[in-house]
Amino acid sequence: MFYYCAKPQFEQERFVMGYKHQNLRIPGPTPVPPTVLLASAKPMINHRGPEFSPLMERITLRLKHFYQTKGDVLVFPSAGTGGMEAAIVNVLSPGDKVLGVTIGVFGDRFITIAERFGAEVIKLSFPWGRAAHPDLIEQLLSDNRDIKAVLITHNETSTGVTNDLAAIGEVMKKFPDVLYVVDAISGMAALPFKHDEWGVDVAISGSQKAWMIPPGLSMVSVSEKAWKAHQAAKMPRFYWDFSAAKKSLEKWQNPYTPPVSLLYALDESLSIMEEEGLENIMLRHQRIGEATRAGIRGLGLELFADPAHYSNAVTAVKAPEGMDGKLINTMLRDEYNVVIGGGQKDLAGRIFRIGHLGFVSLADILGVLAALEMVLPRLGVSITPWSGVKAAEESYAQALTGGKV
Amino acid sequence: MFYYCAKPQFEQERFVMGYKHQNLRIPGPTPVPPTVLLASAKPMINHRGPEFSPLMERITLRLKHFYQTKGDVLVFPSAGTGGMEAAIVNVLSPGDKVLGVTIGVFGDRFITIAERFGAEVIKLSFPWGRAAHPDLIEQLLSDNRDIKAVLITHNETSTGVTNDLAAIGEVMKKFPDVLYVVDAISGMAALPFKHDEWGVDVAISGSQKAWMIPPGLSMVSVSEKAWKAHQAAKMPRFYWDFSAAKKSLEKWQNPYTPPVSLLYALDESLSIMEEEGLENIMLRHQRIGEATRAGIRGLGLELFADPAHYSNAVTAVKAPEGMDGKLINTMLRDEYNVVIGGGQKDLAGRIFRIGHLGFVSLADILGVLAALEMVLPRLGVSITPWSGVKAAEESYAQALTGGKV
Repeated sequence: MFYYCAKPQFEQERFVMGYKHQNLRIPGPTPVPPTVLLASAKPMINHRGPEFSPLMERITLRLKHFYQTKGDVLVFPSAGTGGMEAAIVNVLSPGDKVLGVTIGVFGDRFITIAERFGAEVIKLSFPWGRAAHPDLIEQLLSDNRDIKAVLITHNETSTGVTNDLAAIGEVMKKFPDVLYVVDAISGMAALPFKHDEWGVDVAISGSQKAWMIPPGLSMVSVSEKAWKAHQAAKMPRFYWDFSAAKKSLEKWQNPYTPPVSLLYALDESLSIMEEEGLENIMLRHQRIGEATRAGIRGLGLELFADPAHYSNAVTAVKAPEGMDGKLINTMLRDEYNVVIGGGQKDLAGRIFRIGHLGFVSLADILGVLAALEMVLPRLGVSITPWSGVKAAEESYAQALTGGKV
Repeated sequence: MFYYCAKPQFEQERFVMGYKHQNLRIPGPTPVPPTVLLASAKPMINHRGPEFSPLMERITLRLKHFYQTKGDVLVFPSAGTGGMEAAIVNVLSPGDKVLGVTIGVFGDRFITIAERFGAEVIKLSFPWGRAAHPDLIEQLLSDNRDIKAVLITHNETSTGVTNDLAAIGEVMKKFPDVLYVVDAISGMAALPFKHDEWGVDVAISGSQKAWMIPPGLSMVSVSEKAWKAHQAAKMPRFYWDFSAAKKSLEKWQNPYTPPVSLLYALDESLSIMEEEGLENIMLRHQRIGEATRAGIRGLGLELFADPAHYSNAVTAVKAPEGMDGKLINTMLRDEYNVVIGGGQKDLAGRIFRIGHLGFVSLADILGVLAALEMVLPRLGVSITPWSGVKAAEESYAQALTGGKV
């Protein structure tokens, strides 16, 4: 069949199709819109001068809008992991008991950070592919009245599962002294996240996810309750200190030199996001998430995550039985310039992951599905031609028309 | 006189001269060369894929060249202050005795970070404007044989003073068990820095200084001795952990998502720097530093720093007696689009600072001096017209011709 023989034959074709024209569908760094890239290339300014503060003010106020919080949102020059460390060292003391809820690689990381800084972590672990169960969290909080904080992942990037933070928020409300600390890095601004309504105290996000800008910034919210905990928190900190960041932010500045070019980018991407609107962004992610899953099922492949908790930011797909899933990633990348994620840790080779957060359209996903249709038969997987693309298109059309295709 | 009446008269003129065409002469963020800005605007790639590792390899090898070290240089997504925190928490344990040598704001900051993480700091403080005296460091190291590390600033940005790290390195060699930990943020790649020859163990630099790229990256060297100290060091760490960074670097990767756009920028700026060559870069900074000081003296103003330890990266100038120096900064900025630094902490209003590191030419400095010549008379300071520009030009010409103008 012609359609799976599209391997580039000539160096020139390889060049044209080279990484500069990739369909980058990993769950971060996500593609950055061209106008945002251009905005990031503006000349430097004095970060202590009047040129800077309106930029920081515009950014902060809009971050609060997308976080859906009336509390503070601080910006740190760091990867998302830095924001996770900031969240922990600012509200806890060594020896504090915390409940670490994990459903994958990033939940585990959150727990490791807390342990490194001397927290006593009760680990509540769910099988990979599953979401956290609110009842078990409630049980553990009831049994351990000295727990100071719950650490939990909003959207687990490694497994394509979104935790039900609304339901867990209801549990948290029964324990008003316990902090609700959320790693929202891969979910924020892609999936519904009602910070104040759900009673979240600290939520971390990262620039290279649905904010659609390059990596290098983490954003961390701080509720009033978190500020109170901060006053008593004794874990050592300087770079991540919330008080220093807040004090500078009162002048719309940062305690130390901020990544100016990334702030230019964020300012521009927030404008794009404002134009689309929070509700529409969520809706787009939902439709594209559904279309992705429909396409994968159409191809006859199996989804990894619990169907009740599919993520609309990233889809994890089981590699066909007996096949090293890495082969799929490599062929998609080298032959079709489609770059998707692989499995992490124990899931290496067992799953592949398609990122669909931030700057993503249906066409991007159809490109992934079409490439899969060309690659799978060559790996000995029997599929019906166009089955993936067709199913995704139908799902999307149905979502747009409310059922009528 | 016509020459000090150049205040923009029309909004349009103000716009043309607006901040997008500033002569940015603060000691960081420094101006970024246009090709570097463009490089930073390239599309994202997979930080775990084959697109990324050659970039990280090229960068790391060239950083080692400019550091003049055969040891490791690790790159962290952070401001320079993050690199300072990384340096401390990776080689020390709570309760460790360290000698904190300070000659200004950034020396003080280094000490504060060490104290926050539980080090017992012996503070050796020199008057602002002076350099650290090697003999006093030797005396304190002799008297306190349990000191684990010396923390010191290479180039003190707040006062325009460069410490004699070669001479202090000679002292350090008499105490082979003591770590030599250097904040080289505003000096690296502008001023001579012989990492291995001077026996430096950890040196921090920051992207927004002489590396000529936007803020957001810190680079931290690790000598063999520092690696040994790291094995025993018990300060808590996760984000800054040297071992994790080193392990990832063996695959030319990072432990968590790196700031891809800033690495593109660094890759390009290192190419520009390689073309100019390390020796020529140092020479350019020396000539421009001398020209700046000659110009300031020509204007009849006084330099703040000890003449034996002038910095070739930043020049601090005393505000004329009885005048609030901030007025000079404001007028230069608002009327001539020349942006210079002010005094920090106790020096606020008492000095102003001219940055001349990284992407800087003689013309940039002549622009600052010319603007000063126009502003000072309006502030009641009597000067001889063109005295600053003329002296700077003569100094530069003399340096170029080896004495003959």
